Amino acid sequence: MKLATLPDGSRDGRLHVVSRDLTRAAPAEAATTMLKALERWDEIVSGLAAQYDTVNAGAGEPFDAMAAMAPLPRAWQWMDASAYMSHSKLMDAAFGFEEKKHPDFPLMYQGMSNQFYGSAADMPMTSEDDGIDFEAEFGVITSEVPFGATPEVAAKCIRLVVQINDWSLRRLAPVEMKTGFGWIRAKPACAMAPVAVTPDELGSNWRDCRVDMTLNVFRNGERFGAASGYEMNYGFHELVAHTAYSRILPAGTVIGGGTVSNANFREVGSSCIAERRGIEMIDHGEARTHFMRFGESVKMEVFGADGAPVFGTLNQKVVKA
Amino acid sequence: MKLATLPDGSRDGRLHVVSRDLTRAAPAEAATTMLKALERWDEIVSGLAAQYDTVNAGAGEPFDAMAAMAPLPRAWQWMDASAYMSHSKLMDAAFGFEEKKHPDFPLMYQGMSNQFYGSAADMPMTSEDDGIDFEAEFGVITSEVPFGATPEVAAKCIRLVVQINDWSLRRLAPVEMKTGFGWIRAKPACAMAPVAVTPDELGSNWRDCRVDMTLNVFRNGERFGAASGYEMNYGFHELVAHTAYSRILPAGTVIGGGTVSNANFREVGSSCIAERRGIEMIDHGEARTHFMRFGESVKMEVFGADGAPVFGTLNQKVVKA
Repeated sequence: MKLATLPDGSRDGRLHVVSRDLTRAAPAEAATTMLKALERWDEIVSGLAAQYDTVNAGAGEPFDAMAAMAPLPRAWQWMDASAYMSHSKLMDAAFGFEEKKHPDFPLMYQGMSNQFYGSAADMPMTSEDDGIDFEAEFGVITSEVPFGATPEVAAKCIRLVVQINDWSLRRLAPVEMKTGFGWIRAKPACAMAPVAVTPDELGSNWRDCRVDMTLNVFRNGERFGAASGYEMNYGFHELVAHTAYSRILPAGTVIGGGTVSNANFREVGSSCIAERRGIEMIDHGEARTHFMRFGESVKMEVFGADGAPVFGTLNQKVVKA
Repeated sequence: MKLATLPDGSRDGRLHVVSRDLTRAAPAEAATTMLKALERWDEIVSGLAAQYDTVNAGAGEPFDAMAAMAPLPRAWQWMDASAYMSHSKLMDAAFGFEEKKHPDFPLMYQGMSNQFYGSAADMPMTSEDDGIDFEAEFGVITSEVPFGATPEVAAKCIRLVVQINDWSLRRLAPVEMKTGFGWIRAKPACAMAPVAVTPDELGSNWRDCRVDMTLNVFRNGERFGAASGYEMNYGFHELVAHTAYSRILPAGTVIGGGTVSNANFREVGSSCIAERRGIEMIDHGEARTHFMRFGESVKMEVFGADGAPVFGTLNQKVVKA
């Protein structure tokens, strides 16, 4: 099943059921917003699935992915991981950190959750000097997760998979990291690709609670990276369970896997600029690729077996705030 | 003006206007919930103020502070600072860290905002081995703060002052800090005292965007601390502006000042257990005060000129989750 949110003047927008090929959409009958759908998921999922069949059969109206808001325009919690070992290693190189010993638990931070930009939204940034960077990621959205949930329980609470662009300010990030308090200024709002997808819709590409698909990244139209989502050192069920140790996760919690990155990064490229700069530091002793400037764009897409983007296309331009 | 939220079966509860002496309350006529009030604050504040006068004159019903939810039971963002120098110093001692050079910006982290417990709620905790600790704090609640707001603009967005108990798990906190990613497991949900108060209500005790009042802390009925809220190295307007550098703060954002702590800590005591343990490390080379065990309680109160608690009484017991 595929779901999107179209604007209706409200902050949460209007939930729509979208056809598999992203050509048609109809207002969801079972819930007006994504948050409300997630709060009552078990009750309404069969109704949503039935409507998905009708939309795939031609019901609804033409779907304008460019007009869509984020599938979940605001959430009660957003916690993002750094679950790809090669990403951590290259970030240490990029920032000139000593390579760190990985802790024996998932690396995760709490980010701002009240605003996810739509896939075609311009991204307002304060200064080109801040080291403006994108991060191509996969994430999941949960229904309510009970306090102390195990990975097995957490797996059953994963309702949707989303494709995320986690904007980051690299000049500020290492400074904030050194405090131990995590990021505030270095992590502006994220954006999401137009369509959220149920795990079953991904078929065998949803494997071990990971997305076994290639996330294609293009900077100003040129290929930048094409890493697979599979190489996480923890699956999403383990990330969810990690965060639920001392809290309830409300319906609509978004959990990110972190910048998609593979051990064969020289072949597949990178999903953020800082990683490529890390590789350049290793290879040349200096970073050569500049961070994003105003007017530059980044596009992210995951192609299905039919060659069409599974989550729709995320394509954002950086602008002066 | 004083505001509280009473339960009505919904997650956001029902906003009430409360009399200055906390004896009477009436459902707010201008907005049904605190979040809605903050979203339309400028339009409705005169109506709320007029109703405050009627409640002070005897309108409404008896106010049951013990039954109140947090004034804002869930918020779109919660960012907490560590804005008291003596707290930072003692925490370094408690955790055995080298004393850190303070950065030239406010120390702040993003916490979970979707659940603030009421003042009388039992706090469910996983294990006594986690180093269960309270933190007595002041916080502010804002209306929408524009992207890149200056401290001057931010000051005008501060609508309410609240008293917060920021629960923390000290076994987990330093481990998470070392990652640089901030806290997930170490920071369960916070609680709030029953009543939120407008800054003007505090009169001259609201000074330089700081609360110049004593926050009294009692552990199992015994005095633990009585530090003043004034000694912040940044005022709340500066904390708000710090966070708004690269984001819009939505109406209902909660900004904490961090554990209240004073340079004369030997006289006034501490607002969390870890600080007292830090003092013991300095004095005796070992921590002697144990963290909270199941069944133990903590009470926090700020007394006004009339001797009554300005924000009501926060009194919580730790229980096994």
